[in-house]
Amino acid sequence: MAQEHKLLSGKEVALHNTRQSCWIIVHGNVYDVTDFLDDHPGGSKIILKYAGKDATQEYDPIHPPDAITTNLPPEKHLGPVQLDTVEKVEVVITDEEKARQQRIAARPSLDEILNLHDFEAIARKVMPDKAWAYYSSAADDEITNRENHAAYHRIWFRPRVLRDVTKVDWSTKILGYKSSMPVYITATALGKLGHPDGELNLTRAAASHGVIQMIPTLASCSFDEILDAAQPGQVQFFQLYVNKDRNITKRIVQHAEERGIKGLFITVDAPQLGRREKDMRMKFEAEDPAEVSKAGKGSVDRSQGAARAISSFIDPGLNWGDLKWFKSITKMPLILKGVQCWEDALEAYDQGLAGVVLSNHGGRQLDFARSGIEVLVEVVAKLGEKRGLSFPNEKFQLFVDGGVRRATDVLKAVALGATAVGVGRPFLYAFSSYGPEGMDKAFQILHDEFEMNLRLLGAPTLKDVVPTMVDASNIHSHIVSVPGDRLYDSNYESMQHATLREPKTKL
Amino acid sequence: MAQEHKLLSGKEVALHNTRQSCWIIVHGNVYDVTDFLDDHPGGSKIILKYAGKDATQEYDPIHPPDAITTNLPPEKHLGPVQLDTVEKVEVVITDEEKARQQRIAARPSLDEILNLHDFEAIARKVMPDKAWAYYSSAADDEITNRENHAAYHRIWFRPRVLRDVTKVDWSTKILGYKSSMPVYITATALGKLGHPDGELNLTRAAASHGVIQMIPTLASCSFDEILDAAQPGQVQFFQLYVNKDRNITKRIVQHAEERGIKGLFITVDAPQLGRREKDMRMKFEAEDPAEVSKAGKGSVDRSQGAARAISSFIDPGLNWGDLKWFKSITKMPLILKGVQCWEDALEAYDQGLAGVVLSNHGGRQLDFARSGIEVLVEVVAKLGEKRGLSFPNEKFQLFVDGGVRRATDVLKAVALGATAVGVGRPFLYAFSSYGPEGMDKAFQILHDEFEMNLRLLGAPTLKDVVPTMVDASNIHSHIVSVPGDRLYDSNYESMQHATLREPKTKL
Amino acid sequence: MAQEHKLLSGKEVALHNTRQSCWIIVHGNVYDVTDFLDDHPGGSKIILKYAGKDATQEYDPIHPPDAITTNLPPEKHLGPVQLDTVEKVEVVITDEEKARQQRIAARPSLDEILNLHDFEAIARKVMPDKAWAYYSSAADDEITNRENHAAYHRIWFRPRVLRDVTKVDWSTKILGYKSSMPVYITATALGKLGHPDGELNLTRAAASHGVIQMIPTLASCSFDEILDAAQPGQVQFFQLYVNKDRNITKRIVQHAEERGIKGLFITVDAPQLGRREKDMRMKFEAEDPAEVSKAGKGSVDRSQGAARAISSFIDPGLNWGDLKWFKSITKMPLILKGVQCWEDALEAYDQGLAGVVLSNHGGRQLDFARSGIEVLVEVVAKLGEKRGLSFPNEKFQLFVDGGVRRATDVLKAVALGATAVGVGRPFLYAFSSYGPEGMDKAFQILHDEFEMNLRLLGAPTLKDVVPTMVDASNIHSHIVSVPGDRLYDSNYESMQHATLREPKTKL
Amino acid sequence: MAQEHKLLSGKEVALHNTRQSCWIIVHGNVYDVTDFLDDHPGGSKIILKYAGKDATQEYDPIHPPDAITTNLPPEKHLGPVQLDTVEKVEVVITDEEKARQQRIAARPSLDEILNLHDFEAIARKVMPDKAWAYYSSAADDEITNRENHAAYHRIWFRPRVLRDVTKVDWSTKILGYKSSMPVYITATALGKLGHPDGELNLTRAAASHGVIQMIPTLASCSFDEILDAAQPGQVQFFQLYVNKDRNITKRIVQHAEERGIKGLFITVDAPQLGRREKDMRMKFEAEDPAEVSKAGKGSVDRSQGAARAISSFIDPGLNWGDLKWFKSITKMPLILKGVQCWEDALEAYDQGLAGVVLSNHGGRQLDFARSGIEVLVEVVAKLGEKRGLSFPNEKFQLFVDGGVRRATDVLKAVALGATAVGVGRPFLYAFSSYGPEGMDKAFQILHDEFEMNLRLLGAPTLKDVVPTMVDASNIHSHIVSVPGDRLYDSNYESMQHATLREPKTKL
Repeated sequence: MAQEHKLLSGKEVALHNTRQSCWIIVHGNVYDVTDFLDDHPGGSKIILKYAGKDATQEYDPIHPPDAITTNLPPEKHLGPVQLDTVEKVEVVITDEEKARQQRIAARPSLDEILNLHDFEAIARKVMPDKAWAYYSSAADDEITNRENHAAYHRIWFRPRVLRDVTKVDWSTKILGYKSSMPVYITATALGKLGHPDGELNLTRAAASHGVIQMIPTLASCSFDEILDAAQPGQVQFFQLYVNKDRNITKRIVQHAEERGIKGLFITVDAPQLGRREKDMRMKFEAEDPAEVSKAGKGSVDRSQGAARAISSFIDPGLNWGDLKWFKSITKMPLILKGVQCWEDALEAYDQGLAGVVLSNHGGRQLDFARSGIEVLVEVVAKLGEKRGLSFPNEKFQLFVDGGVRRATDVLKAVALGATAVGVGRPFLYAFSSYGPEGMDKAFQILHDEFEMNLRLLGAPTLKDVVPTMVDASNIHSHIVSVPGDRLYDSNYESMQHATLREPKTKL
Repeated sequence: MAQEHKLLSGKEVALHNTRQSCWIIVHGNVYDVTDFLDDHPGGSKIILKYAGKDATQEYDPIHPPDAITTNLPPEKHLGPVQLDTVEKVEVVITDEEKARQQRIAARPSLDEILNLHDFEAIARKVMPDKAWAYYSSAADDEITNRENHAAYHRIWFRPRVLRDVTKVDWSTKILGYKSSMPVYITATALGKLGHPDGELNLTRAAASHGVIQMIPTLASCSFDEILDAAQPGQVQFFQLYVNKDRNITKRIVQHAEERGIKGLFITVDAPQLGRREKDMRMKFEAEDPAEVSKAGKGSVDRSQGAARAISSFIDPGLNWGDLKWFKSITKMPLILKGVQCWEDALEAYDQGLAGVVLSNHGGRQLDFARSGIEVLVEVVAKLGEKRGLSFPNEKFQLFVDGGVRRATDVLKAVALGATAVGVGRPFLYAFSSYGPEGMDKAFQILHDEFEMNLRLLGAPTLKDVVPTMVDASNIHSHIVSVPGDRLYDSNYESMQHATLREPKTKL
Repeated sequence: MAQEHKLLSGKEVALHNTRQSCWIIVHGNVYDVTDFLDDHPGGSKIILKYAGKDATQEYDPIHPPDAITTNLPPEKHLGPVQLDTVEKVEVVITDEEKARQQRIAARPSLDEILNLHDFEAIARKVMPDKAWAYYSSAADDEITNRENHAAYHRIWFRPRVLRDVTKVDWSTKILGYKSSMPVYITATALGKLGHPDGELNLTRAAASHGVIQMIPTLASCSFDEILDAAQPGQVQFFQLYVNKDRNITKRIVQHAEERGIKGLFITVDAPQLGRREKDMRMKFEAEDPAEVSKAGKGSVDRSQGAARAISSFIDPGLNWGDLKWFKSITKMPLILKGVQCWEDALEAYDQGLAGVVLSNHGGRQLDFARSGIEVLVEVVAKLGEKRGLSFPNEKFQLFVDGGVRRATDVLKAVALGATAVGVGRPFLYAFSSYGPEGMDKAFQILHDEFEMNLRLLGAPTLKDVVPTMVDASNIHSHIVSVPGDRLYDSNYESMQHATLREPKTKL
Repeated sequence: MAQEHKLLSGKEVALHNTRQSCWIIVHGNVYDVTDFLDDHPGGSKIILKYAGKDATQEYDPIHPPDAITTNLPPEKHLGPVQLDTVEKVEVVITDEEKARQQRIAARPSLDEILNLHDFEAIARKVMPDKAWAYYSSAADDEITNRENHAAYHRIWFRPRVLRDVTKVDWSTKILGYKSSMPVYITATALGKLGHPDGELNLTRAAASHGVIQMIPTLASCSFDEILDAAQPGQVQFFQLYVNKDRNITKRIVQHAEERGIKGLFITVDAPQLGRREKDMRMKFEAEDPAEVSKAGKGSVDRSQGAARAISSFIDPGLNWGDLKWFKSITKMPLILKGVQCWEDALEAYDQGLAGVVLSNHGGRQLDFARSGIEVLVEVVAKLGEKRGLSFPNEKFQLFVDGGVRRATDVLKAVALGATAVGVGRPFLYAFSSYGPEGMDKAFQILHDEFEMNLRLLGAPTLKDVVPTMVDASNIHSHIVSVPGDRLYDSNYESMQHATLREPKTKL
């Protein structure tokens, strides 16, 4: 099926440097993108900047590896170029980028990173703005995004004392595979935005620290690169966006199984990708307004941000009826990622799946979806009531993700019945700020926190972290206060504490 | 009844330019307003500025078209003027107005408007202060105004997954008429404050986008202008303030029916117009304090703002007994606009009306009235209990308005039983900031949001948006926190995250 | 009993101008305060400033008229001085006072005062700091003080529509006496701090506006001055602090009855006056620290502020057993002011009193006492349950005070069973900022608000303001949120709305 | 067992001033700390600064007296030095320290200290940063730390009126011993950080003011110093961290009993010390980053702050089985300090202990542990239900600590069943800001507050402070609001009150 092409010279490619005829080079291959210019989700301007040139460096972090081959029809794939004949693109370092490099140089020592929040604080300063916007943004008003974290703060501990906690053990099993902690690295897209090694940072850290990585469909690194980077025997899961073309999905799934993937997490909360307005707004800052208005009405809406751009293949028609087909094409355990009410968790159980991830996609899909930890409370209660199940349960495992920053958050989920908790953004921020050493530090922090908190809870093992160790009675309280009385408040003169005397001038 | 007048010359009018004899020209007719000066709700100063001159430009945006003819006795209507003999009023452009014009020129491209909030942000910058004050102000401390929006945030979704949402359809019927979305343009006054075309912007957008406009009694454009601007077959509703003089009301209602109005929404929450203090305060900035104090005790209280000024005709005696009369003068379906508890909704049902709008008038009437969405929960429960009704219900339709900014807000109301939701201010802000293109964008945003959110809810049609898709259990929680402990809080030193190292000076 | 004194000359008095012998003149009489210097609650410094001089101007606003005669033993009352021989005290106007006078001159016109909050905003700017501190301060952390207002915001309306509200009437009866509104002027101390006419402002406004004034024991004006200022037939109540010396109390009570007082409100929430730290802190700013430290340990604690200083006579031994005695000395109806739970309200009822004021003394006594409006809900429920009473009730009347700023606040109390509501500070701020015209405006605002709100509630009279018109189900919710997650919050990057383009420099 | 050493000369010691051989002098004894440098929890840098010199002044405030002898093996104890031959360490006063000294000089007079908050406000300004960080820091995000105080604000009073409160008495008995108030000084570590006399300030104030001090295991002063400072007959308790080496613990306990300690409070909430990140972060500011990175991976993690450094001896294996042994070695009443749920309180009761302290260690251990006052409500209810106990109870006493700042806080705990309340940080801040006079003032404030509040509650004695005097129905409400709608809020234009006119320039 592969086409035969003659080897193009850099000189020849360089001639196609206009809107009328625009060729670009990516990974040593030449593509004619002239007709695609107005359809490019990132706008035409950024492509035209590389017209006739090598765009690989710009392309890599913000596209999955096969984006260009998938989106361009085969006849626009013009074949390989003689790389030594290609003129180097002179990278102009902007003042903004210089300032960023200075900030990178000013990062504090890793010893000063005390918690997962700290990675985020540093990442925000040292990542390119677009990359930060893509990672940190969420849906609409980002209410659900923040609620994911806030919900954990409505759960309080009921620790036990005078238990021998000399030895504490927070290792566990996830789908039957060992994990050094009740945490897995959940799937997140576009890892290269934060670090040139992208998802490989996660793969390597997972190996070193005995945790399981869930590989995303929309990785910046290719699936095989990630598998190749794994250690022998390293357990990995795979997150699947189901393609409208089931043959593609079948190929991907069976390839994953062949390569040894141990669990298939089918994303069910993203029939369409959410509006991440912070990400969308970021785009306009990079655009020339004149250019924008010229493009006019007929052109593609480029305001949808990186997320939408890379996800148009996802099938909104996926439904419960498809599960039978999945069972027919793979023997991997099937888990639904993105279940948000007990009714769907029950259905998944009744259909014989291996578990569900109670998740709202990190707050990036439906705003005002409830947090996974809140849904967990409801699911455990109802599946107990309807099917006599108790949790954690090896046969039907419950996972939650979203908003986790502390081992205490994880332990609350475990007490309430979760097998393990998915952590995403904090690891992205860890490698975006400090690369692989950041990953090591992140896991060290989590291990330290698990050890301390199990001791303080009076729980030598995770089995001892039981429902009565938490008070989650306020979990469903969605309170918005009565709007403030601005006139009364502005008239109120605050209490003041004692203050030092003003220095007096000498006589 | 019309009086015969000789055509006056501009020169003659110009002589009456003092407090002792003050004539003004509006729409080519001359009026003697000498005796009215101290009764003018907007103060005498602004009239005296136009004494002997053409005041049309100043008059138009802040008065309903017939305000002057209604308020002045017939003998003060001095008849038409020879317009070519009238001296042009030299419009002095103030520095403030120049700055506003610069802000208008600096509006971002419409592509950068991502949600309905954005129109409000831009409108606030580009509208004249008085116009902004009139649109945005609400009653007393504006608690209810903000609660209207806040209440939606106490309702959370319970989305379903694995449903085929390839095709999603958010069209519906309102009083039996098709609407492209479960939203109608609700009645709001004085559209010309925001744009010279006033309410016509709404009429035209309603036609283009397949939604229904509710025409306000207090429009800046005349009723017939608005009807004339409609497309053939375009469905429109009419909002009615009932006049103390029932003959006037009868004439208005029957005229509306003749012109094809499909539903009569009788406002019942405004026997007297609310105190909108933000609007009232704005007035004083335009006044000369010396003038104000001279006027003294005897004069009319001019501190009531635009709202009160135009509404003195409304009948506070309107009561349930009047409904029979309404049924006798029109066959249009009757809907009460402004119902605020289940008891009155039940009465409306028992009296055979077509529906009720659960509304507090956008927070502009009684402060501490509950939000429409909160009242909806109570009405659905009680009418189910007392009359066995379920909602949405074609026979007795429930509407809510107030505080809506997102399609998610609308979908929450639909899930809870509303047929459709009225949106007012966001559309005013859309045309006030960007004219008709703003309206188009506003509807495009809503359509985009409906499509995405129905997919993410797992609801192919509005019928699938059912009560179990939301958790509204906190809707009645009106929480005001215990006042803060200022001494404790001021002593607390906040946690700090890791920070970049300070740059060092070179050796 | 009166002593005979020879008329002293100013010259003679002027000799006693030292700490060793310190005489002062107040209202034309001379007092030897040498031994009292260290006991003066306001410190010795301020007295020594007037040693040998006329201190009347300084004395008047911050002392009840009989403070000096009561506190000094009779032998220190040296008799009258020849006033024309007394040297005038040169009043030095400080820069601070000059600035205050400029602020007074810059007050906005009364037309710009739109609500009771506005008086407070202006009073804060134009009152002397000490006076503001005395009026505005409350107990401890001022939690109860602010809760008094906040509690009203937890009560929401359920208004009715389509009722004939052409005529609305908010007049009522209090203890059988007509009042133009369900509001009375409650007792507050030291009226001259805010205006030279002190409490007479209240007396006169009460007459003009048809409301009832409750005269305070600790008025700046004498009881008889206040009575003399009343109009014929004007109804007044009296607030009583009970003296340890019951003979004094008996004399006061019987004098009040003779002068026609119609109700005796016995304060029961102040066996000791609360710590008003804002007031206490203010004192130190006026003191010379050197002086303060010299005084040392032995001296009186002068840090207690004005409140404590004037209240040492109050009897902490007052108890239920005393009520019989009160009934024996007066026929005036007896009302307990400061009841704070249903148990005490029930006891008052059982003892045959005329009513209770549910009050926490404006938040100036026990911090974390609940608001009167909250206690009202409990009292109405329990007295209904235990004694079959319903409210409002002519035989046993319930009043509340504290935190009222709007007619809506009052109407909430009426709906819940109160006969009337006491308003204190807002009237102090009204006359402190604008004198008697301020009082007129304050009542005009209240009347306007009552008229509008009764219409908007659908209640032609106060009898129509019934319990189902409010939802007070959250009244007992004393919520303090979980402390904020400062690290998470500081990492969160807020959503931003669309913004105007930055102005570009010309070519 | 003591080794014999020859007396070393200062000169000889001074030779060992390098990383290769590092001796220091503490309290006249020489120690070889060369091998310990990299294990020092405070980092090597600070030790190397004193290499070959006398480190006593630096050592004293931040180490318990026996820290060095315990941590260094006996062979590194090189014996006494001839003190007169030791070179004085020249203390360089930094600019920062100079500024601090100026702040100390500018402290307000003690008369201006009105409440316990004020000590904290001043202490924060005048303490060295490290000391402030150690005292004020708490675990993780310091949520529990602040919740401890916040929880009291969810409890409101139901005061009684008309009770004779002429005499009020707030004295009580704790474990049978008299206390002038229902407060004891709870155990806190490292008192010399705040004042050179350290814990002796507490001992002396306890004697003067008739309260009981609980002596901490981790005091800066030695146990015997503290006992020696007590007055004859002064009652003291002892807080015990249980050592892994039970012989050490046995020796300590029996020594305490011999010296007359009246109660043994065994800490059970600290099998491992919590992460106090504010304290940890402080460390890095004192370190040279170059030094930090050189130390590299192999070295001890010095980021754990002062708390962890001094607590490594604590036995995480301590369990219920150990209680029998404790009973065998002492006759002192045994109380568990740090119980956090009713189940453990019940177990303590069933095991025959004398009481429990419901405490989370001032928020310094497990974050999201509930406040002691919240746990109290649960314990009283359940021990009533399960064992028929009522509280306060002489046989099994309940104590709470954490977050107390006002006598009202204490009285809430008493009303709910506590025998007494432990106060820690406020006393540290009192002596850190004002030394012993600060302690006197702190107790005077508490006495004043108790007197006033008992009067205002209508409770002549603590026995009259009963459960119905408080409403604690919201104590278990752990509310975190729905995250704010930033776009809506940023568009909302706040109400403004009336303002003064801008000054006009003269003509």
